[in-house]
Amino acid sequence: MSLSPLIQQLVTSLRCLPGVGPKSAQRMAFHLLERDREAAMELSQALQQAAENVAHCERCHTLSEAKICALCSSSQRDESTLCVLESPMDVMAIEQTSGFSGLYYVLGGHLSPIDGIGPEDLGIDELLARVRSGEVKEMILATNPTVEGEATAHYIAQQLKGTDVKVTRIAHGVPVGGELEYVDGGTLAHALAGRRLL
Amino acid sequence: MSLSPLIQQLVTSLRCLPGVGPKSAQRMAFHLLERDREAAMELSQALQQAAENVAHCERCHTLSEAKICALCSSSQRDESTLCVLESPMDVMAIEQTSGFSGLYYVLGGHLSPIDGIGPEDLGIDELLARVRSGEVKEMILATNPTVEGEATAHYIAQQLKGTDVKVTRIAHGVPVGGELEYVDGGTLAHALAGRRLL
Repeated sequence: MSLSPLIQQLVTSLRCLPGVGPKSAQRMAFHLLERDREAAMELSQALQQAAENVAHCERCHTLSEAKICALCSSSQRDESTLCVLESPMDVMAIEQTSGFSGLYYVLGGHLSPIDGIGPEDLGIDELLARVRSGEVKEMILATNPTVEGEATAHYIAQQLKGTDVKVTRIAHGVPVGGELEYVDGGTLAHALAGRRLL
Repeated sequence: MSLSPLIQQLVTSLRCLPGVGPKSAQRMAFHLLERDREAAMELSQALQQAAENVAHCERCHTLSEAKICALCSSSQRDESTLCVLESPMDVMAIEQTSGFSGLYYVLGGHLSPIDGIGPEDLGIDELLARVRSGEVKEMILATNPTVEGEATAHYIAQQLKGTDVKVTRIAHGVPVGGELEYVDGGTLAHALAGRRLL
């Protein structure tokens, strides 16, 4: 027996969510229909509203429904420090540490010649123009610690050689709370090379 | 920094899904907005359509957008066997085994005097009337193997004492593919008591 068409459609649509397989999608659909139709309607509206109205901030390219996001338009942030990230999720991750008061710049990905993604697709020209215009004193490259993320950081750093902007990269090392035993070799090598005086 | 209002609303709404915590909700929201707005719109519509149109089958009370569900209206099913279940999810679970060709009856829960849920809330009167009307020869009680499920099965069986309907309960025993070592004592006791000749 197959499910009735509308339930089947709902199950299929739920599977577009990351981390949701066929079993979870079915469980979600039945849960909403059996116990929480109000939540289903609310979710439906929230999805539509967000999908229709949320765009990218014109200044930092993070997701925002305002033309200029709350961070970029805040007077509390330090405009001289700019943190360059791959995705809007990364902005949230750094904001949640409460350890950074500068501004962000979201690339929306990383350089990937094989997929045809070059500097112009990531808004790197705009970033460089902004940095060169003088307001930025330090640019922190916080792209992912992957091969592509490193290459992207390296490319951006190269472009700013010779200017007096301080270009930094986030530290690589052992994660806090982890055990040395489970840390991979590459990370350990970085942790040793980047050791600091106590 | 908090998220922009529409994204925040979406994250909050996604948390109504079972098994979705704050981190997953955020990941889902960003995924949909960054990479798959079409899927977001589709999901929005599927939710609305399903929440507005899916009701319960008038005969077996499973979720269905038709007045009488596909199973109840099928001529392929054996009307003399009726399987009594707690929820529409259970119907799916049994259908997926392809080992049952009878009809279903969904209670929508179990007896729970402490929550004020009595036989009338579960449609047990309607079930009994249907069974007594004569078309059902065997009724399989497949409520959950929990205290409440057992009590519900026991109550229904009691009501049909003296009629010539065969009332059965699904077998309790060790799950297929499991290891005896990890099976709890109650289940093992049931498995021993319910042993069968090879």
